[in-house]
Amino acid sequence: MGENRIKIGIVATGNRIERELADRVSTIASELFPQSGPELVFHPHCFLSSGHFAGDDDARASAFLEMANDPSVNAVWFAKGGYGSARLLDKIMPHLASHARAKSYLGYSDSGAILAALYGAGFESVAHGPMPTDLNRSEGPIAIKRGLQFLTRGDTDHLESSLLPNRKYIAMNLTTLCHLIGTPYMPDLSGHILMIEEVAEYMYAIDRYLCHLANAGELQTLSGLQMGRCSLIPDNDPDFGMSESEVARHWCSKTGIRYLGQADIGHDTDNKIVPFGEFADRYAS
Amino acid sequence: MGENRIKIGIVATGNRIERELADRVSTIASELFPQSGPELVFHPHCFLSSGHFAGDDDARASAFLEMANDPSVNAVWFAKGGYGSARLLDKIMPHLASHARAKSYLGYSDSGAILAALYGAGFESVAHGPMPTDLNRSEGPIAIKRGLQFLTRGDTDHLESSLLPNRKYIAMNLTTLCHLIGTPYMPDLSGHILMIEEVAEYMYAIDRYLCHLANAGELQTLSGLQMGRCSLIPDNDPDFGMSESEVARHWCSKTGIRYLGQADIGHDTDNKIVPFGEFADRYAS
Repeated sequence: MGENRIKIGIVATGNRIERELADRVSTIASELFPQSGPELVFHPHCFLSSGHFAGDDDARASAFLEMANDPSVNAVWFAKGGYGSARLLDKIMPHLASHARAKSYLGYSDSGAILAALYGAGFESVAHGPMPTDLNRSEGPIAIKRGLQFLTRGDTDHLESSLLPNRKYIAMNLTTLCHLIGTPYMPDLSGHILMIEEVAEYMYAIDRYLCHLANAGELQTLSGLQMGRCSLIPDNDPDFGMSESEVARHWCSKTGIRYLGQADIGHDTDNKIVPFGEFADRYAS
Repeated sequence: MGENRIKIGIVATGNRIERELADRVSTIASELFPQSGPELVFHPHCFLSSGHFAGDDDARASAFLEMANDPSVNAVWFAKGGYGSARLLDKIMPHLASHARAKSYLGYSDSGAILAALYGAGFESVAHGPMPTDLNRSEGPIAIKRGLQFLTRGDTDHLESSLLPNRKYIAMNLTTLCHLIGTPYMPDLSGHILMIEEVAEYMYAIDRYLCHLANAGELQTLSGLQMGRCSLIPDNDPDFGMSESEVARHWCSKTGIRYLGQADIGHDTDNKIVPFGEFADRYAS
């Protein structure tokens, strides 16, 4: 334990979580690291309830800023997705202290709105990966351990396996990314390999999001696209007639970029970690 | 009949329609105008099927351009929404003849992507209103007659009743509008009263679209917002806790614009007509 113990601050910028979930995640952390494990600090706002959200916008924005701007916190971990992160962008982005840049940020789904904005603002240690709420999935502890090992020791065993050195990556939920188009929070995607994943959207909506990225000229700047898992796609009449990889290939062909195959990310236990930006030597094993 | 007969070209830029629907719409037109009724020309592509769409992108774009660029066609009527119009924007916008500006365009929902782009390009006779597919709704003939009377005689009995002279309006499906943000097809909303409506989207998604418009700085340029009907909103856990008018008021308050009450538009038979742009003397009765 002692002074070198890693401190992970946990915030819920979208939906709330149950206190019992926090306790179970803390137990897993203790078991995973019997010695010198991380200190997990669930911000109390995580358990608030304001309609859809874990507290109102001010409460969630303040909680995020508290953790991001606290020099004693080494990493900020997003507890859960849902919806609500984009509502906080104008409240948090102007108020980040310079040392907020020095820590790691991990999450996915709705929290990708903040991850993307941080990356766009030059934060260097932003990553797509598991969140505490993943414990509720089948074999959820596997995902929790992946996130903890990455945040605590920088373990790279669980990075998305197709990552290559000297390439730039960004991994996002497709819906979350598209809701940043045309805003000051949209990161510059140019030269990046974009990995996308989706959950519970119609296939025509997945196509529509890619169409939006194309019409906005965003796809055209990429060095490549990889499609992650698209789960719980509702049936639609008429059937869209294309799979998610066919949809991805269509838009790559239309915009003249490379389709680089599947990405091992998605709303599931297998969701791997993708650090944003250039895949650095520190990760290449 | 004779030379002055209005010719309405009908295209399906998203989903297909059945030939039987076209026949029934034509019958209603004949009955509504026993003399000097409009000539309804359903482009044959309307009945094609290419997966989700009424023919592939090239077929639908060509059909739209045929009708828009044909000097003998007085009005272009969108047959149906669904999804697919935004896929055609790069194929149609650069190829519109100057006389395409002289005719009327009527539709809503997905076809709003093209209506908005046309309006943004300076087309002066673009309107939100009923489409042939509305015949399939309860009391659908009422909607069809509303559209036909507007397109054929310029009848203003069925305009949205809150429209005021010397104000500028745009009426759109919220999802369709948001998918234009950050693209060259997004019209300049500044100084407009924006009327929005939605169907079959979660309340949190409606909020998320308004958040997108706010984060992109679009809401802030409006002179006001009116919320139309939001129908078939799926239940969600957690419940969003706000109605669509409360959501609209929230974003008006947050962005400092006026909430101007309900708009009489929606995915239903009562969906009224809203000409885009300045509500002109020719409409004010």
